[in-house]
Amino acid sequence: MAIKITGSGSYIPSSVEKNEDFQQHNFLASDGIPFKHENTVIIEKFKAITGIGERRYALNHLNASDLGFFAAEKAIDDANIDPETIDYIIVAHNFGDVKHNTIQSDILPALASRIKHSLRIKNPKCVAYDILFGCPGWVEGVIQAKAFIKAGMAKRCLVIGAETLSRVVDKHDRDSMIFSDGAGATIVELDENAEGGILAHESASFTYDEAYYLYFGNSNNKTLCPDTRYIKMDGRKIYEFALTNVPQAMKTCLDNSGVDISEVKKIFIHQANEKMDEAILKRFYRLYRAEIPEGIMPMSIQKFGNSSVATVPTLFDLVKNNKLDNHSLSKGDVIIFASVGAGMHINAIVYRY
Amino acid sequence: MAIKITGSGSYIPSSVEKNEDFQQHNFLASDGIPFKHENTVIIEKFKAITGIGERRYALNHLNASDLGFFAAEKAIDDANIDPETIDYIIVAHNFGDVKHNTIQSDILPALASRIKHSLRIKNPKCVAYDILFGCPGWVEGVIQAKAFIKAGMAKRCLVIGAETLSRVVDKHDRDSMIFSDGAGATIVELDENAEGGILAHESASFTYDEAYYLYFGNSNNKTLCPDTRYIKMDGRKIYEFALTNVPQAMKTCLDNSGVDISEVKKIFIHQANEKMDEAILKRFYRLYRAEIPEGIMPMSIQKFGNSSVATVPTLFDLVKNNKLDNHSLSKGDVIIFASVGAGMHINAIVYRY
Repeated sequence: MAIKITGSGSYIPSSVEKNEDFQQHNFLASDGIPFKHENTVIIEKFKAITGIGERRYALNHLNASDLGFFAAEKAIDDANIDPETIDYIIVAHNFGDVKHNTIQSDILPALASRIKHSLRIKNPKCVAYDILFGCPGWVEGVIQAKAFIKAGMAKRCLVIGAETLSRVVDKHDRDSMIFSDGAGATIVELDENAEGGILAHESASFTYDEAYYLYFGNSNNKTLCPDTRYIKMDGRKIYEFALTNVPQAMKTCLDNSGVDISEVKKIFIHQANEKMDEAILKRFYRLYRAEIPEGIMPMSIQKFGNSSVATVPTLFDLVKNNKLDNHSLSKGDVIIFASVGAGMHINAIVYRY
Repeated sequence: MAIKITGSGSYIPSSVEKNEDFQQHNFLASDGIPFKHENTVIIEKFKAITGIGERRYALNHLNASDLGFFAAEKAIDDANIDPETIDYIIVAHNFGDVKHNTIQSDILPALASRIKHSLRIKNPKCVAYDILFGCPGWVEGVIQAKAFIKAGMAKRCLVIGAETLSRVVDKHDRDSMIFSDGAGATIVELDENAEGGILAHESASFTYDEAYYLYFGNSNNKTLCPDTRYIKMDGRKIYEFALTNVPQAMKTCLDNSGVDISEVKKIFIHQANEKMDEAILKRFYRLYRAEIPEGIMPMSIQKFGNSSVATVPTLFDLVKNNKLDNHSLSKGDVIIFASVGAGMHINAIVYRY
């Protein structure tokens, strides 16, 4: 018996926002004071740390649930299944549908209902709900699908991550350059006769000191309306937190799976920040006193930025379909999914492809 | 082996909003045209249909996550457990934290993180996430707790429903009189040696035609900002939908539990509308060609209105603690939880107390 990903799909918005498109922004520090450096310097420094050269924004008429629907359609096609046989639709996001040029999150109905509606699925026994779990929401959705399957409550689940962070960024905040839009989806299902699939998972919520490391806050431009809030983060604390806790969570997960570190072929880590992801990888291998294998960590952040819940399923979909650099997957490969984000939450899955 | 509710708590806001407090409202039809009747008549008709005489609003400085935290503290006390032993915190809501006199939903971080933070729980293995599933969110959270326990992924879960609908109502819409604020919480856990507990569950999402029966829409006052949206519903369609589908879902659930209709002692149904709930009850018993037993359906809508995800756990908590009329529960009693709401979702649980 195995719980396997039998199909994947992603939606990468067509609108490219390049670093130079931020050249005219009036960036301010969190206290509202302008930076000493010119934007050219700010943007160069930003690129050196995050690795981000450009990112994608959803077209104005599309919302997160539309992006999720597009990715879901592809995953259903890829798995070659009848959508009426899906038992659960689990949608991870952070802000719901935020229409272009508005500030309200529309989560009534929840996005899973919207996506199921768009997919024209009739079967009422297909239960559709949203999960809010920060950037690790898609990975957590897969873990919840595993729970339903193990409990005998489902055989086939559609797990989607969809986000339009471009709609909630503060244009006066340098961090606005990090965030992007996108969606990824997978079919997760029981295969009675197969082996492999999900071997182990790990999930954790650090809220005692960390709950508000990412939060909804005011613009750095203090003249703007104090009732309008944006995605805000304490980047330094997040960086330290991630480096301390993510490698250990990945190790616990891998150890629980019984798989040796040498068997790991790809690590799909949340695309939050290139330097941070590289540091996490380094610490992870150091925990095993092992060398980092060449080409172990596919990255998409350079072109696609950080689209939160969408990064991991999108990256997986690209590699699976040989659409990223020289990365590919072969049957039997052990891979790790890992994520960290608002909450603060961390999770990981060890999976045999 | 049983999955049992070992503790409950609720938070009923102290601020009472009476029907007469709506006397000065400028109610308009959905097309923006004033009604022919005076407000006295509108309010009398409203009361005759919904049964609502007054409702509770959260104090201005409190948000949904605060209400959920208060209810959670009581549930933890009632279960007499160490909060560090909780494996999952599942929080159901529909709009997140909406600060008084603002229009943005704040769901960063998600409410489960906020509540876990407020509870001062340190254990990172206590996984905290939010579920969006319309009014049936709390019931669905209990079903998800069941899944984690059955899958061997948890032993003890805290399931919370918290909502401040007063923050998203359109004052020009008569339906604004329906909605209220509140929170309910329960501890759901594995008892290896017990019998009873959750006997069966039923869950369904009707999205093909029904996804937008409840939606986020503009004010009936067409002069207000079109970018500001409120909770809106097509009451007539919801009424018909609920009457057609809720009794049947409850019957499927009861039949799956193997319990005879004569054994059912209490039915805790989502407090959406008094007349609708009575009609659902009538149809449910008609499906069994049975008489409706006296005192089978405790109601709180008259005093507390419709607080969405909070109504069912609050009602259960009140009855369990002999705080509602002449209702009470005895060991071995079979009870049904049932809910219906935005999505449209329906669910039910048959439980032996």
